[in-house]
Amino acid sequence: MSLSFEIGKVADGGGRRGALVLPHGVVETPVFMPVGTAASVKAVEQGVIERLGTSGAQIILANTYHLYLRPGHELVARMGGVHKFMSWERPMLTDSGGFQVFSLSSLRKVTPDGVEFRSHLDGSKHFFSPEHSMDVQIALGADVMMVFDECVEHPATYERTRDSMALTHAWARRSRGHFEANKERVPWFAERGGKTQSLFGIVQGGMYANLRKESAERLMELDLPGYAIGGLAVGEPREVTREMIARTLEWLPKDKPRYVMGVGYPDEIEEYAKMGVDMMDCVLPTRAGRHGLLFARDGDGAVVRMNIKRKEYAEDQGPIDAACGCMVCARYSRAYLRHLFVAGEPLALTLNSVHNLHFYLATMERVRKGLADAVDAFGEFNTEPTS
Amino acid sequence: MSLSFEIGKVADGGGRRGALVLPHGVVETPVFMPVGTAASVKAVEQGVIERLGTSGAQIILANTYHLYLRPGHELVARMGGVHKFMSWERPMLTDSGGFQVFSLSSLRKVTPDGVEFRSHLDGSKHFFSPEHSMDVQIALGADVMMVFDECVEHPATYERTRDSMALTHAWARRSRGHFEANKERVPWFAERGGKTQSLFGIVQGGMYANLRKESAERLMELDLPGYAIGGLAVGEPREVTREMIARTLEWLPKDKPRYVMGVGYPDEIEEYAKMGVDMMDCVLPTRAGRHGLLFARDGDGAVVRMNIKRKEYAEDQGPIDAACGCMVCARYSRAYLRHLFVAGEPLALTLNSVHNLHFYLATMERVRKGLADAVDAFGEFNTEPTS
Ligand SMILES: [Zn+2]
Ligand SMILES: [Zn+2]
Repeated sequence: MSLSFEIGKVADGGGRRGALVLPHGVVETPVFMPVGTAASVKAVEQGVIERLGTSGAQIILANTYHLYLRPGHELVARMGGVHKFMSWERPMLTDSGGFQVFSLSSLRKVTPDGVEFRSHLDGSKHFFSPEHSMDVQIALGADVMMVFDECVEHPATYERTRDSMALTHAWARRSRGHFEANKERVPWFAERGGKTQSLFGIVQGGMYANLRKESAERLMELDLPGYAIGGLAVGEPREVTREMIARTLEWLPKDKPRYVMGVGYPDEIEEYAKMGVDMMDCVLPTRAGRHGLLFARDGDGAVVRMNIKRKEYAEDQGPIDAACGCMVCARYSRAYLRHLFVAGEPLALTLNSVHNLHFYLATMERVRKGLADAVDAFGEFNTEPTS
Repeated sequence: MSLSFEIGKVADGGGRRGALVLPHGVVETPVFMPVGTAASVKAVEQGVIERLGTSGAQIILANTYHLYLRPGHELVARMGGVHKFMSWERPMLTDSGGFQVFSLSSLRKVTPDGVEFRSHLDGSKHFFSPEHSMDVQIALGADVMMVFDECVEHPATYERTRDSMALTHAWARRSRGHFEANKERVPWFAERGGKTQSLFGIVQGGMYANLRKESAERLMELDLPGYAIGGLAVGEPREVTREMIARTLEWLPKDKPRYVMGVGYPDEIEEYAKMGVDMMDCVLPTRAGRHGLLFARDGDGAVVRMNIKRKEYAEDQGPIDAACGCMVCARYSRAYLRHLFVAGEPLALTLNSVHNLHFYLATMERVRKGLADAVDAFGEFNTEPTS
């Protein structure tokens, strides 16, 4: 098996703890995955990522679109795959490239065969099909890869969303076929004893619950080892995001990992994890950090957002968050972090990103512990002798 | 005593090992001091700086001009001084601000009283006198501070250099007077048991040996605890730099630390240390790193310069320098470092700077060991029984 997933009892609300076993290691779920866009979590060294939270990030994500353009997937394959290339030996996941093709590049032309687009770097012309996305992702060699899908714009009409979804399903089927025929070409196939990557499907359907249901059902026909919920957090109200996740989780298989792509704020990832989402990723902790936006908790444990460039922090000798256990809060004051940010010092990017990533990972550790405690309590109650 | 300096026997060539005891710790000399311009060694976290080389940087430098403009020396003083502000508990040195006033700011107007200039940040008008430089440096609270001097342009005529030197000497005297009258105002005076900072003089005189001699003699009248050689590495041929250093070292007191400001390439710092220079600083390791220029050694131990963005490194799986013990060479390939640099990833700045700084510090450690060995061998020879 190239992937196994064991889950414990389900807590009230739907959350569950799990252990996702991948070729490069075990990931305890629910998990938050930092985004390492171009084979680097921006401004944070791999050794630091390994020490975030209690035991470091368990799995990180890399973007297929970026690595395809630079340095090129074939180069990465010749270097032994993205793990070796960037010296990250823990699990990784690559997206399909679809999201960036639809959000970053210009002059997209979608046909049933695939998408023609121009590079956002140099304007050069490229073509991505489901088969090509699989080839690129196999060359990169992350533990988990994603089917190539069309990302519909938001808002989109019912008809437009339905048609896009049909294309996405056809592409998912082609992705799976090409992956199965070529999966042994992953750079570490022999070295890892014949293990391969695992291909996850992506449920689309926009903000239409019945399309989401149809999408989940159609993808389950492919019997993939995990399923993502895509196309959310694209500008819709948060209640709609939650509703789409809640409904889609009902329709997805309970025994497989369920991954919500591209979310969210710290309180969102906590909420979704408690609803039963097993995996999430987001650029927010690093991107917000680079813009001076830091996450902390108030006395009641509620998430607060600090804009570190504000004048009020200029002489504040306290840490970002006294309850945070990260290396930044252990050593540096708000006054110093404000100075670094205002002075444009590159260290500001690093320290802000480290704190925010730690904050996300620690939040998820707390959620996992809470789920374990809830299930233990429930288990004890159940096994109590009834006299 | 706020400074003591013990030196061992002098090796052939003039080099000597020493121990410079400062309020924040002991510095083994000869020493290279990384530059932490605005209270940050650019792109490198303090915890990493503490682990460079064998036991980390022993002393770092900060720029008075930059910290005066942003965040302001009074703010830094209220935070307890620059050590506490940036969380760096080892020794530090500040320059006088003179060099940046003369190289970065516009509309300078020099009078016998001081220099009026405009900030390179916002064009605002400022005035630096020897007294003001002392006030700013006392507020910052580095262990060693520098007299305020005029930095003459290069090339400069004999007359221009002589006149500038006369101004520099008058300013050195005023610097010393104001420092002595106000040194107890350093933020950590009480906390460090009444210790104060130490003020070093700066020998000027351009490329004229007799002016250098006169400058050294005039400064020695002030009986300062250490002396720098300034105004070098400003575009003159390297032979001239070496000659000016060699001559000036002859005229400076042997029992006090001797500091050459703003040099140089790795082979230069090694050469000058072996000539008897005790302290050096330079932005080169970090600035070069940010531009993709890395230092390494070839099989014969000679310094080579690698431009990491060159195509030839695109698939090079070796480290920058297999003989380097830094965390970058231990983990990352040239191929990955090239990718980070070409992709504009902020991690490139960090990793390149860490390697280069380690390279400088390891070079200096080797020089110190070589000086110790040379002196030991000489000692043994001397004490050998003559039958
Ligand atoms: Zn923190
Ligand atoms: Zn190195």
